[in-house]
Order: sequence, then structure tokens, then C-alpha cells
Amino acid sequence: MTDTHEIAEVLARVRQRGPLVHCMTNIVVAGFTANVLLALDASPAMVENTRESAQFAAIADGLLVNLGTLTSERAEAMRAAAGSAHDAGTPWVLDPVAVGGLDYRTGLAKELLEAGPHIIRGNASEVISLAGGAGAGRGVDSSDGPEAAAPAAESLVSRPVGAVAVSGPIDYVTDGTQRVRVHNGDPVMTRVTGVGCALGAVVAACAAVVESPLTAAVAGTAIMTIAAEHAASTSAGPGSFAVHLIDALSLLEPSDIEKELRL
Amino acid sequence: MTDTHEIAEVLARVRQRGPLVHCMTNIVVAGFTANVLLALDASPAMVENTRESAQFAAIADGLLVNLGTLTSERAEAMRAAAGSAHDAGTPWVLDPVAVGGLDYRTGLAKELLEAGPHIIRGNASEVISLAGGAGAGRGVDSSDGPEAAAPAAESLVSRPVGAVAVSGPIDYVTDGTQRVRVHNGDPVMTRVTGVGCALGAVVAACAAVVESPLTAAVAGTAIMTIAAEHAASTSAGPGSFAVHLIDALSLLEPSDIEKELRL
Amino acid sequence: MTDTHEIAEVLARVRQRGPLVHCMTNIVVAGFTANVLLALDASPAMVENTRESAQFAAIADGLLVNLGTLTSERAEAMRAAAGSAHDAGTPWVLDPVAVGGLDYRTGLAKELLEAGPHIIRGNASEVISLAGGAGAGRGVDSSDGPEAAAPAAESLVSRPVGAVAVSGPIDYVTDGTQRVRVHNGDPVMTRVTGVGCALGAVVAACAAVVESPLTAAVAGTAIMTIAAEHAASTSAGPGSFAVHLIDALSLLEPSDIEKELRL
Repeated sequence: MTDTHEIAEVLARVRQRGPLVHCMTNIVVAGFTANVLLALDASPAMVENTRESAQFAAIADGLLVNLGTLTSERAEAMRAAAGSAHDAGTPWVLDPVAVGGLDYRTGLAKELLEAGPHIIRGNASEVISLAGGAGAGRGVDSSDGPEAAAPAAESLVSRPVGAVAVSGPIDYVTDGTQRVRVHNGDPVMTRVTGVGCALGAVVAACAAVVESPLTAAVAGTAIMTIAAEHAASTSAGPGSFAVHLIDALSLLEPSDIEKELRL
Repeated sequence: MTDTHEIAEVLARVRQRGPLVHCMTNIVVAGFTANVLLALDASPAMVENTRESAQFAAIADGLLVNLGTLTSERAEAMRAAAGSAHDAGTPWVLDPVAVGGLDYRTGLAKELLEAGPHIIRGNASEVISLAGGAGAGRGVDSSDGPEAAAPAAESLVSRPVGAVAVSGPIDYVTDGTQRVRVHNGDPVMTRVTGVGCALGAVVAACAAVVESPLTAAVAGTAIMTIAAEHAASTSAGPGSFAVHLIDALSLLEPSDIEKELRL
Repeated sequence: MTDTHEIAEVLARVRQRGPLVHCMTNIVVAGFTANVLLALDASPAMVENTRESAQFAAIADGLLVNLGTLTSERAEAMRAAAGSAHDAGTPWVLDPVAVGGLDYRTGLAKELLEAGPHIIRGNASEVISLAGGAGAGRGVDSSDGPEAAAPAAESLVSRPVGAVAVSGPIDYVTDGTQRVRVHNGDPVMTRVTGVGCALGAVVAACAAVVESPLTAAVAGTAIMTIAAEHAASTSAGPGSFAVHLIDALSLLEPSDIEKELRL
């Protein structure tokens, strides 16, 4: 089911269909996220106020709800958008940034879970905390390895969540039945802000063009980590890596994924 | 009137005078917009709360009101700033991002029209929607070509609007009397977020140093599209293009415009 | 006391300890600021709502309060965070962006002064205005030279402020007893948005690992200005400079500071 050809095909479909991805994300990574989606020929749109988010979540092909730099208005707009996406059948991705370390957003994330995110994308500490455990993160970094979050990820899938993707040195993705590990990537990915957050948006773009949440989550992870390997090989540091990553995403072809994906 | 020398001269004046441009813009492109203005020796300042926007719009040399990532507070602050700019005689530019696709901001944009923007800068779908027609855009991308927006642009100019600039493969600018087409640019401009939004800020900088709204709109378009051609010729993809565009803007000289502008 | 070895040692400690820096900053520079901290192996986290800022300021190792693109919610969250940092002993840095030119934020900045910022980092106009004088800035740029702000800086240190760093062609840092001038840097630093704002975050990271506010402020300034010299030497303009600056920060070693710092 998660054969390499099927994963690679998702990239081809994103490029052909150019899904409109409604991104509710944070002020740190909004520009980078938009550029990542544009490099894949997807169409990003950031809409985050209470008067527009529900309307737009129903129009869009996919939705990302990322809890970074939360404000009161964005929190309310996220509730409305998640509910609207649920009702309209728009696949949506929850990125529980820093959940566990901060009470308010932990509560909000658990509330949003009720609206049935298609896919959850986070680091191990965030996924553990979201599942009700005690993650070891203080901020946006994870002190836990992805494998440590496997039981938490499984427990989340038993709720109305299609798949959980835990980012880390080896990415771990599960839909409760299958467990996929993606071995691609480069350590420099953690030294640039927004790579994980933008991955959430890429997964939303993939979910807009493929039925299976697991396939969408693995495809998004494959796209980002393989492009990151290409970019890292030509970079002098994290600054040039971020620039080269956008270039590499724009040049990435399905055949690269078929040849280079290491599951 | 729109002779090439006059257009080129606007760049020289922006560099000499360094206009202070009050940018009310969105979280996706704020940093890129500031860097575009700085590359032209203009002085960007982002002020977007209700307690400061009116005061600052009266102090500034030009104002940009861009409707992306609207919030309740920013919407209220924009109303105050537009009114203050109108009263103080500060030239201001309205960028009706995603107007047409979303009811709330379509209403706000029409309300802001009453404060008489000096110049409107948008894509064809946005300009058509703002004029009361049915544009074909869903998000920030336009499904209509610039020429399709010509009647809408004309109708907006009959209101208290000095000029309308419709961005696209061939940019269309009119003040109701004259119609100018700018043939410069590169397709990669649409694959980087913020090029259109930053163009709105450049047009505001130009409007701060030249009387004619048409000349300001054409000059801003010329500056951005010619620098984009320079940057595209040395770029490996949209990531490096965005970096090279800032470099190219910083190096752009009036003589480049005189030689390379294709009207 | 401000010997070069001690200054250089601060960079080594930041890299070893990876302080968690709570950044309350503006939408223009948030991404750049995060990348600057990550390049130094510090851990940035942007938390800016009223329900989380006090909790997070107590957890973090350092706090930056930067007044750019202020909103009502961020202003209230800053008050709470500054108070919490004060009570928890978290060292915090105040960057009074555009104070003087705008009444509302001038009032807020003076109010925040009561919570005893460890260090103030601004340009000359901002520091003069914060001390109650009439600075010559209109927006974020300074019309005054750093030396002109020396008396204002001294007067601020007599309040419960540990040190004041005035950025400019020659940076001026004082704790009321010692006066340090940092001669490093490059003019292109003023042509990229966020270099000064990110410096505030670097100073907060330094304050998290060294007791003396003066040493932290000088170390942060040294790190940023020396890396800027490295980056400027390989850049074609401000776009590539911003990218190379992140690379240069990631490669900067304490020995570079020992060899190249010019006090």
C-alpha cells in the first residue's frame, strides 16, 4: 500500500492539480510555508480571521491548522475553520506546535481533535502531550525521539484521526494499521525555522489529492526530506540551505522519490 | 507623458529622498516587503494597530493597505489609516488581496474605496471583483488575464481613484485617460510569495515622490519587473530568485529602466 | 572586565547550553530572528498571547520584548511577560522599536521600563526618546548617531536597567560604569530588515548564559557585527547578505571573536 511508486505519484498530482491550501499558521513561518507550497505548484492562501476562516475552509482543497504564535482571534478562527472543514469534507492537518509546554494551547489542541483532523503532524513531545502523556519538550523542540511517540500516535489514531506523522531523525507515520518509517532527511533541517511547519502544509496539499491519510503523510514527508537532502548537499550553512530547499522542491520530480526514498 | 525617461527618473527620486512608507500588510510578506523597500533606499515601517495607524499615516510619505491575513484589529486600523491619509494628503495604495473570494474583505475593500486610494494594485480577479463584477479567483491567484480587467479598472478610476494597476503576464495600468502596458517580467515572479504585495509597497514609495498616479504605478511596475528579469537570469529556482531579486533591486539604476523598459 | 576572551566565551556558552529564548517580536522579522538564534544553537520560541506569555516567560531562559507591529493583544501579553520575567528572574531585553515617533508605544515602553529590563537595545533616536528626550526618528530608522544617545543611555541605567546598547555605525554599550564601543559591522546591515531586531534576541540569548548585562550586550553585538563582516565580504547585495549572515553565524567560532573584535 505504501509502495514507492504510489508515494511518488502524489507529487505528480500536486503539481498537476495545484491544490488551494488554506494555511492558518504562525508569523514566524508564514512566508516560508507559502514559498514551499508555490515551489510544488500548490496554491497557498493564509486566512485567519473569524469572519473568513469558516468560509474559506469550505472552499479550499486542504487546510493546515498550526498552533504557533497563537492569538485569541486566530484560536477562535481555527475552531470555526476546523468545524467547517469537517462539515465540508476538506481534509485538514493539525500541527500541535509546543503543545504540552503551554496549558492554553494544549487545551485548544484537544478541543480541535474533536473536529477530526485528517492528519496530525508534530514532533514526538507534541504528539505524546496531545495524546495525554507527559512530553519532554519546553518549546518547539522535542526532547523525545520519534519512536518514543509511537504508542501516543497509535492512541490518537483510534480517535477520528486518519494518520499521525511524528517528525524526527527517522520520521514515523502510522494510520493505526500500518507503520512507516522514512529514513531520508538531513540534520540541518532542524537548524532552519519552519521546515516542520511547512511540512504540515505540504501534507495538507498531498491530502487534497490522495484519499489515504497515511499515503498523504508519507508523501509529504518524502517530498520534504528528499528535497532537503538535495539542498543540504549544496549549502554552506542553514541560510543557504533554506534558499536551496525552495529551489530543490521546485525541481523535485516523482522519479527522484522513486529512486531515493528509503522506507 | 509616460515616456521612459520620466519613469526612470522616479527611481532616482526614490533613492535620493528615501520616502517613509507606512506598510499595513500581511504576515506572509511583511519581511520581504521591507527588504524590497530597503533595497530601493526607501524606509519601510509596519504599523498596524488602531492606536497608532492614523497618527503614522499622517506622518508617512506614502501608505500601503494590503488586505492579506486580515484581522479584526488590522481592519479597524486600516479604516483609520486610510481616512487619515486622505485628510493629510498622504498618497495611499490599496491592494485588494483575495477580494471577491471572501465576503468580509470584499465589503471592507469597498468601504476603503470611499477614502479615495491614490492607486489600486491587484490582479485581474481582484480588480474585477472590487469593481462589482464576478472575478474568477478563489484565493490570491487570478484566473482572469489582465486585459479582462480593463473595463473594471476603467470604472474604478471614475471613482476618486487616481490609477489602477492590474498585474499579470503583461501588466495593465490606467488612469482612465491613458492605458499603459508593461511587457517586462518573468513567470517565476508568480512562484514566489510577496512579489505582487511588495509591488504595492514600491508603488506607494513612487507615489510619494511623483505627482501623477499613473506615472507612479508604471514606475513601480517597471522597477519590479525589470529587476525580476535580472534576477531570473541568475537563479536556479524560486528560492534563489527571491534572494537575487533583492540584490537586483539594490543594484537597479535609472539607466537600466531607460534601456530595458518595454511599454 | 570586558576583555575579548570573556566576550568570546559567551558564544561558546550559547552554543553549549542552547538557551530557550522567548521572543515577543514583530511580523516583519520573526522568521529571520528565529533563524539567527538557530544558527547560534539557541532555541527560539515565539509566544505572544495573553494566556501564554506569562507562563512561558517564567519557563524560558531569556525573553525579548520588541515593540514592532504592536497589536492590542501583544501589548497586553508583553506587560504580563515582562512582569513574569521580572518575578521569575528571567533576564529580558527591551527593544523600543520606533519609540518617540508614536505616542502609544512610547507610553507602553515607559510602562515596561518599570518591570526592569535587564538590557535595552535600540537605535539612538529610540534610546533618547525612551529616556524622555526628543529623538529625531520618524520610523524605525535613527536620525541621531549613537554617541548622541550616550547621556540618555546613562540616565536609563540609573533606573533598574542593567545595560543599554545603542546600535549604529559604532555601537555604544554602557552599564553606567563602563562604556564600550564596538567598531565592527558593515553598512549593509542597515539595508536588511531585522538585523537590529535579531540582535535584541541574540543579546537575550547571551544574557541567559552570563551574569553581567554589559558583557551580554557587548557579546551579542560582537557576534552579530563580526558575522556581518564575514557575510558582507561574500555578498552581491542585501538579499544575499541576509542569507550569508545566517551561514556566517552558524560558522562563527569564539576564536573569530578573539581575533577580530575591535573595541
